[in-house]
Amino acid sequence: MALSFTGSKIDRADHVRADPERLAGYMNWKARLLRLDGLMPALDDSGRLAWGTLADAPEEAELVFLGLDLTDGGEKACFAAVPPRGDATPRMANPQLWSLMATLAPDDLAVYGGARSIVDWHARHRFCAECGGDTKLAKGGWQRDCTSCGASHFPRTDPVAITLVEHDGKLMLGRGKGWPEGRFSALAGFVEPGESIEEGVAREVFEESGVRIRDVSYVASQPWPFPSQLMIGCHAYADDEEVTMDETEMAEILWFTREDIEAAFAGAPSAPFHKPVEQAIATHLMRWWLAR
Amino acid sequence: MALSFTGSKIDRADHVRADPERLAGYMNWKARLLRLDGLMPALDDSGRLAWGTLADAPEEAELVFLGLDLTDGGEKACFAAVPPRGDATPRMANPQLWSLMATLAPDDLAVYGGARSIVDWHARHRFCAECGGDTKLAKGGWQRDCTSCGASHFPRTDPVAITLVEHDGKLMLGRGKGWPEGRFSALAGFVEPGESIEEGVAREVFEESGVRIRDVSYVASQPWPFPSQLMIGCHAYADDEEVTMDETEMAEILWFTREDIEAAFAGAPSAPFHKPVEQAIATHLMRWWLAR
Ligand SMILES: [Zn+2]
Ligand SMILES: [Zn+2]
Repeated sequence: MALSFTGSKIDRADHVRADPERLAGYMNWKARLLRLDGLMPALDDSGRLAWGTLADAPEEAELVFLGLDLTDGGEKACFAAVPPRGDATPRMANPQLWSLMATLAPDDLAVYGGARSIVDWHARHRFCAECGGDTKLAKGGWQRDCTSCGASHFPRTDPVAITLVEHDGKLMLGRGKGWPEGRFSALAGFVEPGESIEEGVAREVFEESGVRIRDVSYVASQPWPFPSQLMIGCHAYADDEEVTMDETEMAEILWFTREDIEAAFAGAPSAPFHKPVEQAIATHLMRWWLAR
Repeated sequence: MALSFTGSKIDRADHVRADPERLAGYMNWKARLLRLDGLMPALDDSGRLAWGTLADAPEEAELVFLGLDLTDGGEKACFAAVPPRGDATPRMANPQLWSLMATLAPDDLAVYGGARSIVDWHARHRFCAECGGDTKLAKGGWQRDCTSCGASHFPRTDPVAITLVEHDGKLMLGRGKGWPEGRFSALAGFVEPGESIEEGVAREVFEESGVRIRDVSYVASQPWPFPSQLMIGCHAYADDEEVTMDETEMAEILWFTREDIEAAFAGAPSAPFHKPVEQAIATHLMRWWLAR
């Protein structure tokens, strides 16, 4: 079972980032520039991600080195330009983006997701959090340096634990506030400084549902580029099903049987809920659970 | 086997953070303030973390709500003050800190680590990365808001994958540049935006050692508060032992037998390397591997 936003065929070639000469050598007429409209992907006639050349980048635009595309035997350096504006509140709400993403090949989706996260981070980090000074792109786009105090800043990757909680052959799923009627997913939350993954899982599940869990195990991980989460998919057991819902965050929390979940995945009209979007790791986790 | 920096007995009580009235209600004479000297912990006569009252905080100091200490049946609200300066380049190099940490009880070490990460983040994020404006502490210290553009900023947790690579009953370990002679640990690196944990593991190991790995599995996680890493401990297999070392990052990469590792953990004079510090997840991973 494939995990969405993984499987990019671009080699990140980290050693190039810290080598200004080598990096400059790659910024030639052969280099490819990922075509983005703001943060939206552009597709070519065959439905693949569209690429241009560095000449297509706006003058003065900062360029991020995504890595080397080695698929054709050559070494094509791949870049993306930092857009004028980032997206601080990216949500599931952009239907055009979701329909574009649904048509992308898995490796293109991974390239798009990674590029989106990093250029969005640059767009929203033009200033130094330590002194308020201007920052400029460094290390091929994997760092920003303050022009005033010299502090270095690094792209964020925010770990989120998302957990299938099981009891007596059933799974506890929740509907967040503002989500469409009938849409349920696994409970999730950011792992905070000072927590292990397992502690973060237990805290989030308890906060949202009042349910205490045990025997947390790791299942799989994938990126979620809205803006830059690392989704860490887990499974845990509960000893009972009594829910005390956090009404500030959740609209509904219910327990579903295997038959309920099978019906949701079959898209049956009788299904008691809609499964999460295909690209979400929750979908992968539920398929993994059904296949166990 | 316990994981260091985990097992805090302070309940983070997230619901309090977003409830200004409730939070204010906890900021009374009964509230406890973690005593820190800059970012160093202070110990009381019994060798536990020392706590004062909110009256001990410098005037104008921002206060972070760490949570509620429920251990005595009561509800003691716990806070830490943001120091004037953070520590952008915290390293293993502070011997005083390491000897203090070695004496702390495991739950105190977890409280200290979590508090250190969050107050250090505040100290180094006084300005808005989006506009350069001043920010102020919000949500009990789990957010900063820009006073100029209104953007919200959240504490960082940086996932790092650290991996025991195994072949033919041996483990590949490395000595980083600048590390003391004889000190070896598992290879590690930050998981980047757009990568799964498994992709990050494979990339880092290949970059540093030239070794291709397969069958990555998750073992355990723990925080590492220098400044705010989430260490994700993994195991993987290699198909051969030929190392092509990245000399910009690593000083040595060697393969060690079970006997070598047992000797290192026994502190034998004949041991071919020194094990990592007790608080490092690498120590936990190697013990886990020896016990398998
Ligand atoms: Zn600065
Ligand atoms: Zn701002």
